[in-house]
Amino acid sequence: MGFLTDTAVALTGDGLYEGEIQPGWDISGNANGGYLLGIAARALQAHTGRPDPVTISAHYLSPGRPGPVTVACNMVKEGKRFATATAQLAAAGKPVLQVLAAFSDLSQPQDAPERVDAQPPELPPVEACIENQAAAEAEPFPFAQRVDLRLHPRDSGFRRGQPSGEARIRGWFRLPDEEPVDTIGCLLGLDAFPPTIFNARLPVGWAPTVELTAHVRARPAPGWLRARFTTRFVTGGFLEEDGELWDETGRLVAQSRQLALLPRPLPER
Amino acid sequence: MGFLTDTAVALTGDGLYEGEIQPGWDISGNANGGYLLGIAARALQAHTGRPDPVTISAHYLSPGRPGPVTVACNMVKEGKRFATATAQLAAAGKPVLQVLAAFSDLSQPQDAPERVDAQPPELPPVEACIENQAAAEAEPFPFAQRVDLRLHPRDSGFRRGQPSGEARIRGWFRLPDEEPVDTIGCLLGLDAFPPTIFNARLPVGWAPTVELTAHVRARPAPGWLRARFTTRFVTGGFLEEDGELWDETGRLVAQSRQLALLPRPLPER
Repeated sequence: MGFLTDTAVALTGDGLYEGEIQPGWDISGNANGGYLLGIAARALQAHTGRPDPVTISAHYLSPGRPGPVTVACNMVKEGKRFATATAQLAAAGKPVLQVLAAFSDLSQPQDAPERVDAQPPELPPVEACIENQAAAEAEPFPFAQRVDLRLHPRDSGFRRGQPSGEARIRGWFRLPDEEPVDTIGCLLGLDAFPPTIFNARLPVGWAPTVELTAHVRARPAPGWLRARFTTRFVTGGFLEEDGELWDETGRLVAQSRQLALLPRPLPER
Repeated sequence: MGFLTDTAVALTGDGLYEGEIQPGWDISGNANGGYLLGIAARALQAHTGRPDPVTISAHYLSPGRPGPVTVACNMVKEGKRFATATAQLAAAGKPVLQVLAAFSDLSQPQDAPERVDAQPPELPPVEACIENQAAAEAEPFPFAQRVDLRLHPRDSGFRRGQPSGEARIRGWFRLPDEEPVDTIGCLLGLDAFPPTIFNARLPVGWAPTVELTAHVRARPAPGWLRARFTTRFVTGGFLEEDGELWDETGRLVAQSRQLALLPRPLPER
């Protein structure tokens, strides 16, 4: 059990892979979007022969439930630096995820100028942050045991009915049992935290993802990752959620943006 | 001549459209990325039967040169609210652009809570901003006549070898001859401005786009659009460029993020 094992795929035909949505990665029955993307990314990793998803976009078409899935990959272009390919993850013939990605090899640092106009999120030490499982004690869910999240205390009040008022979630991320986080594990980290709008004092519940794009800039150093998610625009029935992951060396390793649907408010009782 | 005319496509087979990269949309011979995406989006608009690209991702695979192109569309899922489809724009059988998008109908405003934690970019009046053509007088290019851009004076100094030092470009955007900007025109607006890094005092030239994702939230009101582009992370040989378009009613109409390659510095002479 673990992220690597639970996203494993096996080649069964021309660009066709089989895998399985394992139980325990769900929230209220629907598998986490970052986990589903992880399965598709493992197939693309094998299909392209390149280890790292430099940019990957996924459209979420139907919920993923535990059970066997297929991932059909198609190479679009094999270039020197990138291999671009599509993938469709399907369950019982029904599309769950449609993916477009460019894979590359990030093992060699580029000799290029750098310039960063941002800081990693300031977080209290891991021990002073709030375990997601504990924070969710009222309604425990198995997914909270598949990832090790520690929320910034200022961003965890929504669990007690006290949202911060800022559409922001910050915290620490790692995999349990010291499983290393590779660049595909970053995709999980970018979709593992509670939605930002839980802190926004809006009369809404879970926000289903329409589309998520992640850019992975570097392989993370071992250890905890710092995460920050923010939402600036809740308009037209949609919201974006922008994510960042930083490793312990203070380096940005991945960025994401997802477009989610704002569910209509529940009718008042 | 105009954006709508120059992005026109005609159905010629099952999901297959023909169009043409018209001359004059290029910069140094390569067609602008937003224009190319516009051609693919017109085909997807016809193929899905829905007018508005709510979320669209494009991978740029090879430069687009004037001449005939094909756009091969495949429907992935037709839902009630969205139609999700892929498209490949190719020239002489060679892929130029691979696209994944969800189209919808944004004509009906959603009855949903709104919350915006951002402001439109502050810009001097259009007359006080710098025409891109004038700013580029040293090296005029036809693309500057296909779009009407006015740069914030503080962000246009790079044209005179005086970059602002901030990786940011702000300005006004519209189409010439009062051509209306529809939601596909927004895709052009999101990729029509000079690169942010021109203002960043980095020893690099043009930054080729690897991937661009745009979210369109609303149909723009008639008139000028305010645009803002920023880059926070130049790392690992990549940079992101985040874009926003706001209409004259003060409403965010579209957001974008692109991943671009940072070319290696030119050797010193």
